[in-house]
Amino acid sequence: MQITDINGVYASGTHCGIKDSGSLDLAYIYVPNCVGSSVVLSQNLIRSATLDHNEEVFNTGPVKLMIINSGNANSVTGEVGMVHVQDTVAKASECFGCLPTEVGVASTGIIGVPLPIHLLLNGLEQFSGTEKNGVACAKAILTTDLVSKTASRTIQIQGHDVHFSGITKGSGMIAPNMATTLGFIVTNLALDSITCKALLQYSIDNSYNMLSVDTDQSTNDMVSLQSSGELVLSLNENDMKAVQHALTELCIDLVKQIAKDGEGAQHVIEVHVDGAQTKADARSVAKLVVDSPLVKTAVAGEDPNWGRILMALGKDPSVTIVQGLLSIRINDHPIFTNGHPESIDRPGLKAVMADFNIVISIVIGNGPYQATAWGCDLTHGYIDINTEYN
Amino acid sequence: MQITDINGVYASGTHCGIKDSGSLDLAYIYVPNCVGSSVVLSQNLIRSATLDHNEEVFNTGPVKLMIINSGNANSVTGEVGMVHVQDTVAKASECFGCLPTEVGVASTGIIGVPLPIHLLLNGLEQFSGTEKNGVACAKAILTTDLVSKTASRTIQIQGHDVHFSGITKGSGMIAPNMATTLGFIVTNLALDSITCKALLQYSIDNSYNMLSVDTDQSTNDMVSLQSSGELVLSLNENDMKAVQHALTELCIDLVKQIAKDGEGAQHVIEVHVDGAQTKADARSVAKLVVDSPLVKTAVAGEDPNWGRILMALGKDPSVTIVQGLLSIRINDHPIFTNGHPESIDRPGLKAVMADFNIVISIVIGNGPYQATAWGCDLTHGYIDINTEYN
Repeated sequence: MQITDINGVYASGTHCGIKDSGSLDLAYIYVPNCVGSSVVLSQNLIRSATLDHNEEVFNTGPVKLMIINSGNANSVTGEVGMVHVQDTVAKASECFGCLPTEVGVASTGIIGVPLPIHLLLNGLEQFSGTEKNGVACAKAILTTDLVSKTASRTIQIQGHDVHFSGITKGSGMIAPNMATTLGFIVTNLALDSITCKALLQYSIDNSYNMLSVDTDQSTNDMVSLQSSGELVLSLNENDMKAVQHALTELCIDLVKQIAKDGEGAQHVIEVHVDGAQTKADARSVAKLVVDSPLVKTAVAGEDPNWGRILMALGKDPSVTIVQGLLSIRINDHPIFTNGHPESIDRPGLKAVMADFNIVISIVIGNGPYQATAWGCDLTHGYIDINTEYN
Repeated sequence: MQITDINGVYASGTHCGIKDSGSLDLAYIYVPNCVGSSVVLSQNLIRSATLDHNEEVFNTGPVKLMIINSGNANSVTGEVGMVHVQDTVAKASECFGCLPTEVGVASTGIIGVPLPIHLLLNGLEQFSGTEKNGVACAKAILTTDLVSKTASRTIQIQGHDVHFSGITKGSGMIAPNMATTLGFIVTNLALDSITCKALLQYSIDNSYNMLSVDTDQSTNDMVSLQSSGELVLSLNENDMKAVQHALTELCIDLVKQIAKDGEGAQHVIEVHVDGAQTKADARSVAKLVVDSPLVKTAVAGEDPNWGRILMALGKDPSVTIVQGLLSIRINDHPIFTNGHPESIDRPGLKAVMADFNIVISIVIGNGPYQATAWGCDLTHGYIDINTEYN
């Protein structure tokens, strides 16, 4: 399923010339009857003019149109950066017939270089606004990604099909020279902007915000949600839970695709923490383990090195850990139980760690909270990509 | 100058058999007339029994004797770990003729494996307690380090020579399998334990705590300070400042030696942040930049990639950054000034970045605070060492 398989959602991608390679570099997502929308933006202090613009328009009302370019991040480009955002918005609102306050902008690619704005503005004229080409849109937002990333979830509510569909990009939290994690999600379910905001923030906190390829974060990161308003339902509490769950599952699917396409990744790592006294404790431990260079290199070396996992999970002194209950499993094989190492079958475990997906399950106590984080291993490929980039 | 060049300080190292290689693996530092001492311990929640012991004895009174073994960390070894610490302390107090409460213990090496305690106890009998072999002591505390690390500072106070001399080990904050950063410093200046504690904590905060090879931290880290009490002076405020400065300079010297010996390091990175509104801001930004995998790989690739430095310095949303004043220099060459990129001589800058020492100087505003952090680049060597270790 593509985002354009949802009624009332139009999208496409084209080559306008920002990328020398000739590959697609300009996309739009248009939801003309959008009834609600929200966006989550990078917390980095150094940020693109696109983020300042989006913060404003998403607070004004439903954002019907997203214009996305790849190949140039329009970041750290000074005053001209904001002028180029305004030029893009003015032209797009003219081409698509909507208000400037209904247009969001996302950029990804090289930073510190002014956008070739005339190419982008000419490119916008190539769109009719009624294309149903989700595949081209998903391709046009990529930079160093090796593959397009799309995901969908459909659930039944009150006998109706509720769809969520999204696309994302990112090859590392940061690809070389600060390429970016972007995500764009659409739904047929009528949701106002306030509801969109609450749903999206929760799902992002439990997916994109638990993803780490290299702990670095971009100046341009954003994920948006737009509702086409087609399916109007009065949602009860259980319905809302189902909607939240579907959106989170969709985001996790997208996040796993980013981890899989992580720079140099030879393994995807999922760290599940249970038994925490607080949600914050669970999140902190999961992220510390998935972020640890020594855990990441152990996974790359397919070595069940529980010592490094213990070291990493102990790094946050504010977390409550019950050492007598500490247990670690890798792909369901116990390696450390109730504070003591298991006498492990090392060759057998090395074979288990040859799996592409490595799930590290950790119990830190008997509390009720849990969290999951995703990442990838640290390999020579990462060093190659990031030392040789210029 | 070696630590044993200070009057009243005895030290040596021997091979007791913990390391199969036959290299030195047991050391002591003995200050029989010690009048004050202090220790700073790892904050990691998962910690060696040695740290629990040291926390207790350093709080009881001056610690005259430090026993240090390498090759085995005595960490995550269960109840037997503390028994082995107590055995070591009992035997050492008997051999050296001091109280058990005057004996500290440090261990570094493989974790999760019980200490071969009989070898260690036999080894203690080889020491007379009056050796002046600082060179052997500095060697015996090493694990994966390629070189011994010693440093000294001498200052004149009231016409007298005040000496600080120290040794350290560490090849990465963590060498493979959680090897450890250890440091042992002695001085001839009479300092009580309360003064030792204040001086040591400040110096550690501005040296060891600003060092990062891979952001991981050990279960066994510690740095101690012991005063031989030889030189009794009444110190005024300026004297204390000079003493603090000398101790900090000594610690920075040791820390730079660790960074230089960092796993796979081809460059040492020093990040200096100025113009911060608070000391915490300055420290946070300096550490974020020196820790960033993308900055570290850029330095490995000798690429003056200011985009990555900007990304990294913006990662802490609580820091105040004045974007119009943001400036970055690399080895004194301006690459980003008052919020704008310089038109840089790229081949010339690539040549500058071939230097072993890379100093990244950052101005983030017009505040009065500054901080410096040290680290090393991220290379194929790091990946080799940490994926292939078993």
